[in-house]
Amino acid sequence: MKRLLLLSNSTNYGESYLSYPKQSIKEFLGPDVSEVLFIPYAGVSISYDDYTLKVAEPFLEMGYNLRGVHSFQNAVEAVGSAQALAIGGGNTFELLNQLYENGLIEIIRERVFNGMPFMGWSAGSNVAGPTIKTSNDMPIVEPHSFNALDLVPFQINPHYTEERLPNHGGESRPDRIMEFIELNPGVSVVGIPEGNLLKVIGKTVSLVGPGTMKVFHKGLETKAFSSQNELDFLLK
Amino acid sequence: MKRLLLLSNSTNYGESYLSYPKQSIKEFLGPDVSEVLFIPYAGVSISYDDYTLKVAEPFLEMGYNLRGVHSFQNAVEAVGSAQALAIGGGNTFELLNQLYENGLIEIIRERVFNGMPFMGWSAGSNVAGPTIKTSNDMPIVEPHSFNALDLVPFQINPHYTEERLPNHGGESRPDRIMEFIELNPGVSVVGIPEGNLLKVIGKTVSLVGPGTMKVFHKGLETKAFSSQNELDFLLK
Repeated sequence: MKRLLLLSNSTNYGESYLSYPKQSIKEFLGPDVSEVLFIPYAGVSISYDDYTLKVAEPFLEMGYNLRGVHSFQNAVEAVGSAQALAIGGGNTFELLNQLYENGLIEIIRERVFNGMPFMGWSAGSNVAGPTIKTSNDMPIVEPHSFNALDLVPFQINPHYTEERLPNHGGESRPDRIMEFIELNPGVSVVGIPEGNLLKVIGKTVSLVGPGTMKVFHKGLETKAFSSQNELDFLLK
Repeated sequence: MKRLLLLSNSTNYGESYLSYPKQSIKEFLGPDVSEVLFIPYAGVSISYDDYTLKVAEPFLEMGYNLRGVHSFQNAVEAVGSAQALAIGGGNTFELLNQLYENGLIEIIRERVFNGMPFMGWSAGSNVAGPTIKTSNDMPIVEPHSFNALDLVPFQINPHYTEERLPNHGGESRPDRIMEFIELNPGVSVVGIPEGNLLKVIGKTVSLVGPGTMKVFHKGLETKAFSSQNELDFLLK
C-alpha cells in the first residue's frame, strides 16, 4: 500500500524547524520505523552534512534516527534497504538533477509502490508529482528531464499562496498555475498552503492542517478543499 | 554594432501598458526604423493576435508599426528581414520552447550580432542572456534546452526585488540568485528592478531608470549600480 506524506513547507514563519508537522510525521511513520533515510540533494547553499544534521535533530526528538543518503557508499542500495525515505526542500531543479545523477528515480518508485513510507517537503514534495513543472524555484541547473518520481498522478505546488508583493508586477501564483493547465490539459495541480500537508494512504487522500488547498484543472472550476473534504478523486 | 534594450518589465504597477519605457524605446529605435517585428511566444493565456494588438498600440503612439512574427508565412525569413525585433514578456520557458520550435535562435543571433536593434521585456530580456536559469517563471513546459540567445554574456533577473511576502517562507530573490552563482561560478547575474532597463550599444552598457541594479558573481561582493555608473565591465 502506497504511503506518502507531502508537506507544503518544512517550517512555518517564526516557528522552529519542522515544528508544525511533528505530530503528523510521528503518526505517519509509526512505531515500526526506527531509521529514516534522508535525501539532502535540494540543498545548494548548505552542505549535505550540515543539512542532514539540521533535519536529524527534530527527527531524533520524534524518536527516529536519520541518516543522509550521501553517507552511504552506494545510494541505490541505501534506498533499496531504507525503512522510510524523507526528501528535504531547497532547489527543485538541483534535487531532480541529483536524483538522476545518482540513479535513484527507479529505485525510489519501486520502493514507494511496494509500501515504503515516503515523505517530502517543498522541493521534496514537488518531485513526488509527474513532473517539476509546477515548482516555484529558480531553474539554476538543467536536469536531464522535468519528469519526476510520478508517485501521485497530480502536480504539487508547495508554499501555495494567493498573496502578491505590493506595487510589484509579474504573475500571481494562481496566474502561473492557470498557465500550466492551459499548456497541460488533463493534469490537476494541487496548491498546498504553508502549514498544511497531504496524506496519501493507499487510495485515500486527505489534507492535514488548518488551511484550504486549491485544485486547478483545465476546463473545471478551481475549487478549494479543507481537511473535512474527501480527496480520493485526486488519485483517479 | 550590437544594439540591445533589455527592460525589467513592460509596465509599472498602476501605469498604462509600456508607459515608463516609451521615451527610451523611441530614442533607441530612432527615426530610421518604421516597423518592428514582435515575438509574442511568451504569451500563454492570451492569443498571439491579441497580444500583438495590445503591444501595437503604444508602439503606434511612438510612431512605429508593429507586426507579429506569427502572421508571416515563414518566421525565419521574417526575422531575417526585420528592421528591429521586440520580444514580449510572459512565460520564459514557453518563449524559449517556441523560439526553438520555430527555429529562430540562430537567425536572431546572426541579425543582432550584425546590428539589428533588439528589445525585450521580462521573459523577452531573460532570453537575451546565455541561459534562462535566472528566470522567475514557473517551468510549465520543458524547452529543448535552457540555453538561450546568448546576446550578452551575463544572466538577467528581471522584476528584481528584495521584498518578501510577509509571514511566508521560501527563498528571497537574492537567496535564489546566490544559489545560481553557487552552481554556476564565473557567470554574472544582473538583477534589474521594475521600471528600469539596461541599454547595450556596442561595448557600452548603461542602466536607464531611477533604481539601482545588483550584480551577483561567485566569490565577489554583490554590488549595487545606478544610472550614474560605468557598466561596460559586464561585457568583458
